Amino acid sequence: MPLDELLTPPDRQQREARQDHRGVALLLTGLPAAGKSTLAHALEARLLALGGQCLVLDGDRLRAGLNQDLGFTESERQENLRRAAEVAALLVEAGMVVPMAMIAPLASHRQLLAERLGADYREVWCRAALHTCERRDPKGHYALARAGKLADFTGVSAPYEPPQTPALILDCDTRSVAQNVKRLLQWMATERLLGPSLQRALSSH
Amino acid sequence: MPLDELLTPPDRQQREARQDHRGVALLLTGLPAAGKSTLAHALEARLLALGGQCLVLDGDRLRAGLNQDLGFTESERQENLRRAAEVAALLVEAGMVVPMAMIAPLASHRQLLAERLGADYREVWCRAALHTCERRDPKGHYALARAGKLADFTGVSAPYEPPQTPALILDCDTRSVAQNVKRLLQWMATERLLGPSLQRALSSH
Repeated sequence: MPLDELLTPPDRQQREARQDHRGVALLLTGLPAAGKSTLAHALEARLLALGGQCLVLDGDRLRAGLNQDLGFTESERQENLRRAAEVAALLVEAGMVVPMAMIAPLASHRQLLAERLGADYREVWCRAALHTCERRDPKGHYALARAGKLADFTGVSAPYEPPQTPALILDCDTRSVAQNVKRLLQWMATERLLGPSLQRALSSH
Repeated sequence: MPLDELLTPPDRQQREARQDHRGVALLLTGLPAAGKSTLAHALEARLLALGGQCLVLDGDRLRAGLNQDLGFTESERQENLRRAAEVAALLVEAGMVVPMAMIAPLASHRQLLAERLGADYREVWCRAALHTCERRDPKGHYALARAGKLADFTGVSAPYEPPQTPALILDCDTRSVAQNVKRLLQWMATERLLGPSLQRALSSH
């Protein structure tokens, strides 16, 4: 079609076919400092390098912007996740891979995402022991929480319910970021979230 | 860099250079049924066809999802726009063109977007006479508003303040969608929102 007559953007199916991957929201759940954001951005880096469409939704960043009006009561945590799910849905509809780096500590939180996103949702558990995360503590939040200066902090003063049936578990204790992103991409390939040409590009590296 | 070592996604500047256009939020403001959403999607269609990155934020769609908890009081309209601006900021940071099809009826509403988005914000007035919009009335909202069955409806029972200093005015009364999207792209080129290779691709069509 001549460009001048092009008035309607490609639909989701056309976008997915063109870019050879599905639109999908990948919740990267885990304790604070498990490495969720780092992994999300490493995945984004690789998918972009391969010509894919990817945008990270980072829980901390959402809380500094879209969700800055929300605190950490249970109803506010739910609203935080509801909004994240709605933004993810918008991006997934446009055919993007959306790594969501969010603690999402309770099964009910993950359920909320699963219900909103349906078949476009996968749960990836970034599993790391509490003592590993507490030793890393890049933002000093664990120290503050232990000192009683940070309330409702997951792992210390608020619970983290381990996912019961995650689609994938990544060992964020002993594996490197590079190893984990490789594992994540392999899994996406076997789940047919990535198409054949992207799979070939990955395996040729 | 070998793919295996790639852990950090390109920053905004790198993305903009690669795709040869800037990340920018374009508010398409105007009366209901002026043609804002249609124009937004036509722009998206062309930019995607040219290899650009574009995602429409449509006010109606946001109200059905992310902002479904909000009504039409003044404070709710402001929160509606605040959230839209935050999502737009996220996308603009990733280097995307973000046509925002939203009524944004008051100068104070547009000011809110301008302040949040700063240099990444442009205001495009989709100008159409009230009687034109009312004659179109694709959703029957004008008829409902005239019958007193729809409160706070912009143009009938709520004010629309014409933009005083829009970056661009499009004649949505007499010009076709194809004409207006062409004008919009030409303007983006002169504003250097589109780089040289995209400009060449446009002018060769």
